[in-house]
Amino acid sequence: MFSSADAVIPACAAVGVAFAVWQWLLVSRVKVSPYSAAVAGNGGGRAVFRPEGEVEDGGCGDDEEADGDGGVAAVVRCAEIQSAIRVGANSFLFTQYKYLAAFTAVFAVVIFLFLGSVHRFSTESQPCQYTKGKICKPALANAVFSTIAFLLGAITSVVSGFLGMRIATAANARTTLEARRGIGPAFAAAFRSGAIMGFLLASLGLLVLYIAIKVFGLYYGDDWEGLYESITGYGLGGSSVALFGRVGGGIYTKAADVGADLVGKVERNIPEDDPRNPAVIADNVGDNVGDIAGMGSDLFGSYAESTCAALFVASISSFGADHNFAAVSYPLLISSAGLIVCLITTLFATDCYRVKTIVGVAPALKLQLLISTVLMTVGVLVVTFTALPAEFTMFDFGEVKQVKNWHLFFCVTIGLWAGLAIGFTTEYFTSNAYSPVRDVADSCRTGAATNVIFGLALGYKSVIVPVFAIAVSIYVSFTLASIYGIAVSALGMLSTVATGLAIDAYGPISDNAGGIAEMAGMSHRIRQRTDALDAAGNTTAAIGKGFAIGSAALVSLALFGAFVSRAEMTVINVLSPKVFVGLIVGGMLPYWFSAMTMKSVGSAALKMVEEVRRQFATIPGLMEGRATPDYASCVRISTDASLREMMPPGALVLLAPLIAGTFFGVQTLAGLLAGALVSGVQVAISASNSGGAWDNAKKYIEAGASDHAKALGPKGSDAHKAAVIGDTIGDPLKDTSGPSLNILIKLMAVESLVFAPFFAAHGGLIFK
Amino acid sequence: MFSSADAVIPACAAVGVAFAVWQWLLVSRVKVSPYSAAVAGNGGGRAVFRPEGEVEDGGCGDDEEADGDGGVAAVVRCAEIQSAIRVGANSFLFTQYKYLAAFTAVFAVVIFLFLGSVHRFSTESQPCQYTKGKICKPALANAVFSTIAFLLGAITSVVSGFLGMRIATAANARTTLEARRGIGPAFAAAFRSGAIMGFLLASLGLLVLYIAIKVFGLYYGDDWEGLYESITGYGLGGSSVALFGRVGGGIYTKAADVGADLVGKVERNIPEDDPRNPAVIADNVGDNVGDIAGMGSDLFGSYAESTCAALFVASISSFGADHNFAAVSYPLLISSAGLIVCLITTLFATDCYRVKTIVGVAPALKLQLLISTVLMTVGVLVVTFTALPAEFTMFDFGEVKQVKNWHLFFCVTIGLWAGLAIGFTTEYFTSNAYSPVRDVADSCRTGAATNVIFGLALGYKSVIVPVFAIAVSIYVSFTLASIYGIAVSALGMLSTVATGLAIDAYGPISDNAGGIAEMAGMSHRIRQRTDALDAAGNTTAAIGKGFAIGSAALVSLALFGAFVSRAEMTVINVLSPKVFVGLIVGGMLPYWFSAMTMKSVGSAALKMVEEVRRQFATIPGLMEGRATPDYASCVRISTDASLREMMPPGALVLLAPLIAGTFFGVQTLAGLLAGALVSGVQVAISASNSGGAWDNAKKYIEAGASDHAKALGPKGSDAHKAAVIGDTIGDPLKDTSGPSLNILIKLMAVESLVFAPFFAAHGGLIFK
Repeated sequence: MFSSADAVIPACAAVGVAFAVWQWLLVSRVKVSPYSAAVAGNGGGRAVFRPEGEVEDGGCGDDEEADGDGGVAAVVRCAEIQSAIRVGANSFLFTQYKYLAAFTAVFAVVIFLFLGSVHRFSTESQPCQYTKGKICKPALANAVFSTIAFLLGAITSVVSGFLGMRIATAANARTTLEARRGIGPAFAAAFRSGAIMGFLLASLGLLVLYIAIKVFGLYYGDDWEGLYESITGYGLGGSSVALFGRVGGGIYTKAADVGADLVGKVERNIPEDDPRNPAVIADNVGDNVGDIAGMGSDLFGSYAESTCAALFVASISSFGADHNFAAVSYPLLISSAGLIVCLITTLFATDCYRVKTIVGVAPALKLQLLISTVLMTVGVLVVTFTALPAEFTMFDFGEVKQVKNWHLFFCVTIGLWAGLAIGFTTEYFTSNAYSPVRDVADSCRTGAATNVIFGLALGYKSVIVPVFAIAVSIYVSFTLASIYGIAVSALGMLSTVATGLAIDAYGPISDNAGGIAEMAGMSHRIRQRTDALDAAGNTTAAIGKGFAIGSAALVSLALFGAFVSRAEMTVINVLSPKVFVGLIVGGMLPYWFSAMTMKSVGSAALKMVEEVRRQFATIPGLMEGRATPDYASCVRISTDASLREMMPPGALVLLAPLIAGTFFGVQTLAGLLAGALVSGVQVAISASNSGGAWDNAKKYIEAGASDHAKALGPKGSDAHKAAVIGDTIGDPLKDTSGPSLNILIKLMAVESLVFAPFFAAHGGLIFK
Repeated sequence: MFSSADAVIPACAAVGVAFAVWQWLLVSRVKVSPYSAAVAGNGGGRAVFRPEGEVEDGGCGDDEEADGDGGVAAVVRCAEIQSAIRVGANSFLFTQYKYLAAFTAVFAVVIFLFLGSVHRFSTESQPCQYTKGKICKPALANAVFSTIAFLLGAITSVVSGFLGMRIATAANARTTLEARRGIGPAFAAAFRSGAIMGFLLASLGLLVLYIAIKVFGLYYGDDWEGLYESITGYGLGGSSVALFGRVGGGIYTKAADVGADLVGKVERNIPEDDPRNPAVIADNVGDNVGDIAGMGSDLFGSYAESTCAALFVASISSFGADHNFAAVSYPLLISSAGLIVCLITTLFATDCYRVKTIVGVAPALKLQLLISTVLMTVGVLVVTFTALPAEFTMFDFGEVKQVKNWHLFFCVTIGLWAGLAIGFTTEYFTSNAYSPVRDVADSCRTGAATNVIFGLALGYKSVIVPVFAIAVSIYVSFTLASIYGIAVSALGMLSTVATGLAIDAYGPISDNAGGIAEMAGMSHRIRQRTDALDAAGNTTAAIGKGFAIGSAALVSLALFGAFVSRAEMTVINVLSPKVFVGLIVGGMLPYWFSAMTMKSVGSAALKMVEEVRRQFATIPGLMEGRATPDYASCVRISTDASLREMMPPGALVLLAPLIAGTFFGVQTLAGLLAGALVSGVQVAISASNSGGAWDNAKKYIEAGASDHAKALGPKGSDAHKAAVIGDTIGDPLKDTSGPSLNILIKLMAVESLVFAPFFAAHGGLIFK
């Protein structure tokens, strides 16, 4: 039963890992340890990092020169700060993982019990549900393997987040140090580090899933229905960890950020990331545990879920009936091709088209998106016509749909290009190169209130194009290949996830680099460079969130379809009260969830503000820079708040489908999922873009790069103060509640899918 | 064919009108004309208004005393200001009506052409659609009568809004003058005036509809299908005028309000409604054209639409087949009973339970809600068991459903009580007597950013209970009596509309009264009293909006059901790509719409700010009170902005269903309506409650009634400034975009219903 897929998938995953390692070797040449710094310091303040070829293209001589920040002291200081950030992030993640371990253990038991009870824990084999006339493995086996898959997914997600954090906390100071040599090297360091994370995660997700399928296959043999049903547990595991990672990390980072800004920038008039601010380390830790670890887990979850949804539907279609492994593995092959495409794309940024000036940063990142999309279109073409038979049938809610291989090509490609459309729209609405953000900045003239009104309106407006892009993808892929079309369309959007993660992780790394430059007391020039990287990073972070939510919409629709199929429903009629009630309550859940997470950030920020104020008031000489603040107490406040506050929203998301399915039945649950999806997409996109726009409106005023911006500035002007307020309001919107909503809609859907056999057998106690 | 309904309905409407006239006679005894003021002034500064019985109960002697503001000068000044406000409101409304007349004429032609084309303008009679084997009137007749009904609805809506504005602009100064005599008389004046508006509108809506049915019936005879199908145009007319009233009025009022506050309160540190502020007249005009005229048209629209939806469904059920006029008229009878119940309820507030102290205002208003709900439950019982046969059948998407009369009792009652639940929840989240608003006020300690974060979170959270209340109503009434159940459930919620409007109109009247007191230079004590009335008014306004959106949800679901029935669909399957695409795009429309309206308010406010700043800078002596500002130019800015800016959102709402239905067909349109409903409800509730909470958090700090509030204040403190920013942000949310969304969801549904015959015959050019 050896198939070409068995060669291609592991090979591509291995190439991805190897590429990540190579990038790491390049980045790690920049030394930040105090000892090597001393050595480097002797070399006249130039960092050691000098990959082949970079000497030749030092065209913009000025930028390439080190400028006096290169002394040993600066490197030592950077190393210390980096270490403080890493220690904080490590300690938070390990504490969080303890909670997660407990949660995962409990939830694993729940999964086992619920699924095991479907046929009363019988060890008898049973007739297959879809392949009529054949015998499949017992429900108990599915319970066992779903639980194992769940644990595997959870562990992979934890590892993804953790690796991301380690890479980012190694990259931040290196980016700062490289900024002494110019914007180009700094960009390369930050971007390469992002790429390491992207490739490691994408390869890891692919590899673990592939191995799991192979190992589970040893038991399941020909019973692919059971095999791929169990595999869906992998997606559930990945997403539940991602939920807590996103919510916990999001609360952590924003409590620290908001708290630090409110006292530091607003009350004390000291710059962002000033080392006198007691919350500054917590703020920088937050970038790593929230935006890096949380985002890593999130996208890994999307990837795992869309693959699982596609695999499950394929297994009950003609691919499964024919036992065509290459065809069933189509989703994995697409991801494999994606790794190779992203590899080539990355080389464009690091070796072909070099960033040399501040204005070159944003276009370089945009180019990445475009190149990866174009190349991937070719990749999809190749995979589609080699792996798939010319014609086959797909399961279509109880019916059978004739599908041709080029149909699937369109499904994947439209998802891919819809992702690009979402990315570019997001960029348009959140980059300060275009009028929307400039209008928001302009509205700061009349104060914070108009800034907020304009920013909210911008967020609402930014929903239009992404929703149409998603709608077109859904219509085309749904029509061509039913629910399988949606699943592979989602995979198309996620196929370039390595590049997506790279440009996304680049943001917080640059943010941290700026923080370290400020704290290490480096010159204004260095700070200007890291700020430029960071401003582009805000936009790429927003683009990343756009991708995350766009793919989440498709993924959760695919999971929804798989759930509906698994629960043997053929119609979800809006004209049924059960469904409609689910729809309207589901539409409310994103609001309930956001209320919890926003309030959590607000309360934690209040505590942080009080602590920071207390330290400024009670530590003599702190404001003058003669005393060191108590960073640890602020780290503790963020840690405690986020761990405590991540529980209620987590419980809401995990319990809602269980309650709906158990008490109100699968019809109401289906309505609930559809409602949450339809409403959540809008809330998530608008929240994340409003936040991104406020942040960059502030940066626009601070940078003062145009006459208009100069008229609004400088830092400390009334307009700037108004912009800071907007930025602070946007923080929880864009980094806590907004991105967590992706997970809400996906997780509810995948949970329903995993528990579908139970709901179908025993659900609906009230609305029977 | 004379039925008891023919006696009861006109009689109740007449009683309602008579009651309104009586209340007007009472209120008008307070004289505000300069001449009579001079006479009154001779009487020692006591206003003339002294209804029987009020002399005796002057228990709280201090409150009942006039306190020196009663001189002729003050009355003259009040009269002048009142006249300026009335002139401004008049001129705005008349300009708006010119635009509306043009729009209505064009849209009437569209309706006629679209509906006439269904059977190619044939004058031949046709087989009935539902009553098999009978002959009905030609489609052309339905086109003609639908157009007439549309015009009737539009005119009634205009008259409703206009009457409301006239009453409110007569009541505002009277309330100010009464405030000299104490909180009790002031409350009575404001509340009575609200009641006048409530009773006039409710009676008018009922009467016009009844007469239209009777007159149309002369032509239609036994063809009730055609008769009640045409009548649905009445709802469409009402709602399209309401849309422009709400949006235009909303932009007007908030542009003025935000502009006035930003310069006056924030920059110049002068109080709200200070006569030196050039935008102050525009601000007060805005309350009347937005919150009064707009709200009047909105609730009239809801009332007309739910009645039309119920009548249409009844006409194609056994009531229609049996030609049982009393039974078909059940919705009208419920509204008639509602008038009588509200009449009794009003007497409780004005004659039984008198408000004597500031703290008594809010409970008095709450009691109104409770009393009307309890009494109405009895009213529903009586109407249900006298008007309806014990058993009958209802049209249920192509099937027939057996319904008993007590089923309908439950449907109406659950809507009624769900309204109360929504009202009380809204009160809890927006009144500063409870912890949510106090928490928001508390968060002002750390600045505007946390205030906004907490306020947004509050708004999101406030959605939970209303959505569950709506969901339960939908489930119960849908299950008991299908779409007819939903329609009468909506009517149940709206049956106490006269009381609802009374307590709702009370808010802006009090707001205006406060403004007049400030501008007329009355003492702090008077202003304190009007402020107390106003704070309660903010909460009642939020409650009113809660009712409006709750009923809008039910109404639009009922209209949706009627549309689906009319377009002969039996299933709206979420698992169809056509439907799902509609769902997700529909969910986006409220965001698109809000983006437009928020941005409009923001831009208009910016213009206003510039004008106000210009006047302060260029008019010598303005700040010192020695010169009069140019009020008219501010009025002009608001007027121009609102008339220009109401077009795009209006076009969005009106064109979306037409485009969806014509090009993508009825399935996609059905999805669009469901998506807009599910998402719009959440956005509307959260926007209106966030805004209400910010407003009252500010008032909480200003009033300083507790130690906590004192610690945050006084006016001008940092916390207060932060609260003002929140209040300003909330203005467009709660008074422009939030309440306009009710109309969005209703109007799209009623438009689909009216155009259903066309869509069913010729729609779906692309997704055929």
